[in-house]
Amino acid sequence: MPHLVILYTPNLDLSVDQGGADMGALCRQLCDAMLAVRDEADRQVFPTGGTRVLAYPAAHSAVSDGGATGIAAGLGGDYAFVYMNLRMAQGRSALTHQRVGEALQGVVKAHFATQLASRPIGITVQVDEGHEVFDAKNSSLHPLFQRT
Amino acid sequence: MPHLVILYTPNLDLSVDQGGADMGALCRQLCDAMLAVRDEADRQVFPTGGTRVLAYPAAHSAVSDGGATGIAAGLGGDYAFVYMNLRMAQGRSALTHQRVGEALQGVVKAHFATQLASRPIGITVQVDEGHEVFDAKNSSLHPLFQRT
Amino acid sequence: MPHLVILYTPNLDLSVDQGGADMGALCRQLCDAMLAVRDEADRQVFPTGGTRVLAYPAAHSAVSDGGATGIAAGLGGDYAFVYMNLRMAQGRSALTHQRVGEALQGVVKAHFATQLASRPIGITVQVDEGHEVFDAKNSSLHPLFQRT
Repeated sequence: MPHLVILYTPNLDLSVDQGGADMGALCRQLCDAMLAVRDEADRQVFPTGGTRVLAYPAAHSAVSDGGATGIAAGLGGDYAFVYMNLRMAQGRSALTHQRVGEALQGVVKAHFATQLASRPIGITVQVDEGHEVFDAKNSSLHPLFQRT
Repeated sequence: MPHLVILYTPNLDLSVDQGGADMGALCRQLCDAMLAVRDEADRQVFPTGGTRVLAYPAAHSAVSDGGATGIAAGLGGDYAFVYMNLRMAQGRSALTHQRVGEALQGVVKAHFATQLASRPIGITVQVDEGHEVFDAKNSSLHPLFQRT
Repeated sequence: MPHLVILYTPNLDLSVDQGGADMGALCRQLCDAMLAVRDEADRQVFPTGGTRVLAYPAAHSAVSDGGATGIAAGLGGDYAFVYMNLRMAQGRSALTHQRVGEALQGVVKAHFATQLASRPIGITVQVDEGHEVFDAKNSSLHPLFQRT
């Protein structure tokens, strides 16, 4: 089961008119985008009952030079940063990896368009294949979507 | 030194009678279970002074379809999710990995039995072997357990 | 682009005179140390616009035996723990990995000297090479440092 974890600077949790980025809405959009990805055989890549997105603002952070260059450039020194890491199961094709990454990127480009145009911000999207040595799943959620 | 990180939906931090799962008690149970694992030579796998569990509720999250299917099934739409990842040092046997994973699973199955029986929830337990390119430990805790 | 994530026990967020460790200042020091690392060709290893440190106190945690041995030793049972993981891009030399790790270690040893001398605490510093299957960067921060 895939999980997407988002780590970010807490200035993105301000209200949108103060520079925030509505990270709650972003989670939902990313989850929906993941659920819509299909593989070469037109099968849904991620099971509905096993797909989730969790976002965490840092309690403390330091980004780049701390603001001086942004201030000097007239863009402000309140840098923002978002790191997204999706861990998915092993064994998917390179094409599927690409489709998944592009699906996330599509959401990011739309959701952060205003931010990218107006402030110094960096947003990284990475997809990892898990290589766990033990894996167990316990779920009363997954079966909800296997009844049909 | 091993560390177990738990990422979860914040609805599990409610009081137990409101649907919470006492995540603090879970941390202690998992730590105790890790300390009790023994390898093929009957040695303690994880050093007492180097074993720890850290749990993080997400500030924002999105799980599965957001609730519609759970509501339709009469189970409620307040989905919960827990992801546990234990990172341990390289070089342990496959049997040790299995014992470690099963020790965590034993705690999970007991601790979440009520939750699994009564709401849509997914709990994943994974164990990774670290492959770090640099590793340094600084500790005044570890030596406490090497004095005997 | 590198990112350093710090997971730690929340007792380190107390004020310094109550046993805290000023984790905000630590983030800045670590970021500065990362920016100062140079490779064999005397080039800056990490791009200024892509370097960041994010720190997260756990909401719940369990460390070691929970305190009994520290209390018995007269050092107190309020154990602290810090886990630092830096993920950097693939392809750097072993010497660069070593320099990066030692730069972080230099900060840690100075910043936590008092803590290490006065309480049970463990601080782990690890550096990972990422092995992502998809990687995309969106940034209005990075270009600020490429204008010269």
